[in-house]
Amino acid sequence: MRRNKLIVQKYGGSSVANPERIKRVAQRVVDTKRSGADVVVVVSALGDTTDELLSLAAQVSQNPAERELDMLMATGEQVSVALLAMAIHELGEDAVSFTGAQVGILTDGTHTKARIVDINAQRLAGELAKRRIVIVAGFQGINPNQDITTLGRGGSDLTAVALAKALQADVCEIFTDVEGVYTADPRIVPEARKLAAISYDEMLEMASLGAQVMQARSIFVAKRFDIPIHVRSSFSLREGTMIQKSARAMEDIVVSGVTLQKDEAKVTIRDVPDRPGMAAEIFRELAAKGVNVDMIVQNVSREGSTDLSFTVVKSDLPATLRVTRSVSHRIGAGEVTTDEGVAKLSIVGIGMRSHSGIAAKMFEAMARERINIEMISTSEIKISCVIRKLHAERAVRAVHRAFGLSRSAVPSRKLLATSRR
Amino acid sequence: MRRNKLIVQKYGGSSVANPERIKRVAQRVVDTKRSGADVVVVVSALGDTTDELLSLAAQVSQNPAERELDMLMATGEQVSVALLAMAIHELGEDAVSFTGAQVGILTDGTHTKARIVDINAQRLAGELAKRRIVIVAGFQGINPNQDITTLGRGGSDLTAVALAKALQADVCEIFTDVEGVYTADPRIVPEARKLAAISYDEMLEMASLGAQVMQARSIFVAKRFDIPIHVRSSFSLREGTMIQKSARAMEDIVVSGVTLQKDEAKVTIRDVPDRPGMAAEIFRELAAKGVNVDMIVQNVSREGSTDLSFTVVKSDLPATLRVTRSVSHRIGAGEVTTDEGVAKLSIVGIGMRSHSGIAAKMFEAMARERINIEMISTSEIKISCVIRKLHAERAVRAVHRAFGLSRSAVPSRKLLATSRR
Repeated sequence: MRRNKLIVQKYGGSSVANPERIKRVAQRVVDTKRSGADVVVVVSALGDTTDELLSLAAQVSQNPAERELDMLMATGEQVSVALLAMAIHELGEDAVSFTGAQVGILTDGTHTKARIVDINAQRLAGELAKRRIVIVAGFQGINPNQDITTLGRGGSDLTAVALAKALQADVCEIFTDVEGVYTADPRIVPEARKLAAISYDEMLEMASLGAQVMQARSIFVAKRFDIPIHVRSSFSLREGTMIQKSARAMEDIVVSGVTLQKDEAKVTIRDVPDRPGMAAEIFRELAAKGVNVDMIVQNVSREGSTDLSFTVVKSDLPATLRVTRSVSHRIGAGEVTTDEGVAKLSIVGIGMRSHSGIAAKMFEAMARERINIEMISTSEIKISCVIRKLHAERAVRAVHRAFGLSRSAVPSRKLLATSRR
Repeated sequence: MRRNKLIVQKYGGSSVANPERIKRVAQRVVDTKRSGADVVVVVSALGDTTDELLSLAAQVSQNPAERELDMLMATGEQVSVALLAMAIHELGEDAVSFTGAQVGILTDGTHTKARIVDINAQRLAGELAKRRIVIVAGFQGINPNQDITTLGRGGSDLTAVALAKALQADVCEIFTDVEGVYTADPRIVPEARKLAAISYDEMLEMASLGAQVMQARSIFVAKRFDIPIHVRSSFSLREGTMIQKSARAMEDIVVSGVTLQKDEAKVTIRDVPDRPGMAAEIFRELAAKGVNVDMIVQNVSREGSTDLSFTVVKSDLPATLRVTRSVSHRIGAGEVTTDEGVAKLSIVGIGMRSHSGIAAKMFEAMARERINIEMISTSEIKISCVIRKLHAERAVRAVHRAFGLSRSAVPSRKLLATSRR
């Protein structure tokens, strides 16, 4: 017997912010079910629940234990799944809700940012076989000690993708408050276009470059297990953007999108001795303090020492300075300076791999606008430049135009980039 | 090695209504721990949480599925345990929180009013052995299907008593917003006295007669397993009332307390044929509809038929009337009448068993006040009278006085009855 199409749908907190919206989600789930598909739904906590729970915690403890924070936070999604099940019943369909623990989402022991180790999908498969709509609390799991864990930022997306993998779903639909992935932020570039499709790799670069549609870790899992993701709006029926393996047609596109990140600061260590192990020492200590370093630029040395620059998110700046100054002193390097007036502009596209002159075209576009480039870093499918924040929006528009991303001649399904509405 | 004293403490919703109160409870728990005892704490949901969750449910469904209601409601206690654990950490003690499922509170499958079948106390014992304060979500468990269940009204008390049993605790302390069990409701009888001790049987009668300190089912379990219960106020350090096996001293007390119930209605079926099985037919159908019948009075028949009266809580009156009218018609009985203007006054005391004249003394007290008695029902340790609600308070005072319950000559530890403050 051929099985039905299986769709995993994930609805974020804003999609289930209140009973009215929960009912709308219920209707959408029921419509999907009645179209002949089996449906597994992953939900986040209602709108502000997370903030309310954190505020309660802050009122009883200055530094709440992470295990207890997980215990507390996990209730948010549990409320959502129960309410959504009720709302679906009200529409005459059979539905059953589960916590992460109940459907066997096994994680490691790292509280507040656990990693999914395995999913025991037996219970889920049993419920699907009964033709039920299955609703699963996002963001949470259970560790080998039977303690409740949460998955950290973007956790519900991860739950959805991991369930899609475990159940061999046909597609994982991520419902959000944007229509899909765009060639650039439409607030900056009004003529930016929604993409019909984007590759996992491009989306990964987009995600880590600040596009807030999905967290990088979920896309990484989707790529690894080849799970097609459909990012779409919970407020409209229009198709969104498919995230999938790169199709042949996509290879033709050289640059798929332009992204901008303004929440980073630049840190420079002057006169780092040109000896093996210096960089390792610096970044090992930063990693130990949980600081995520983004771009790192080091040029050739001059007179036995070199300047080393990197970017970190601004909230990590105090910790970064403490570590960096101490290491700099120890290894005999010079002054540590910081600069918060920067922005990072990137172009992304798998087509870049096989095309030359892309970097030059990008730099020329900025030169024409008399925008100075302070740092440059490249990967297989992206080029990033650090520039003055003051010129950031103008630079995005110039680069977007230079690569013809908004030309109507380019079929919209071949365009590519991300943004929040 | 002799183990520490083990105390199970239960704090109700009003004791943990907000962060300030949670901190106060934390302090009390820590004080208990530091006095040298091992402590297991059971908590209810924060103040109004239950109502808020029910309101959310009502907004998405007119008739929410009970399984999903349990899923929803169980989050309330989960929030409480996490917050209490954090607040205890803040005071420098080690504490760990658990859901009902995590500590193996196994129930049957009856959602919204499950019965505890077993407790797998292994995890708890392990945490206690690590000298940790253990905090358990009240009111909830897990059924053989791994679904979350809730225990219904008074569920957190039941959790506490059942844990005390499973862990062989020395005492189960029930913290509430009253100081203990009184000889009568102090709002009606200002000279009512707090009892130092009361027997399980008496407390059972008190509970089922409307005293709201504890639900009958928890007391029943405590009696069955001989678990001493200490009912006390979470707002004061004073000793409350011990509920325990009847002590010799208690036998001397003839009447221990006076209770009053005003939320019942009287139902009368006229001219019930005097044939075997008539009463059974009526009450079988009421039970099938979930109606709890309290007092039942039937006098000797006259001319082949009799009048049958009973009381039910007012909220059950519509269902009761539907059932009763249909059965009455089928068995050839007469008219069904109801009366909501009644109250039920009871005296309770194990001493009654061996004393005569108690009923007469009670009836005389009311006669002196010219209060008519409409129904009478007795058990081994109680006598209940249905009277006009209009006269209820006056009757309570008269009976309380008649049995000398407020006389200062009677040592207060021998007095007995319940009330909310």
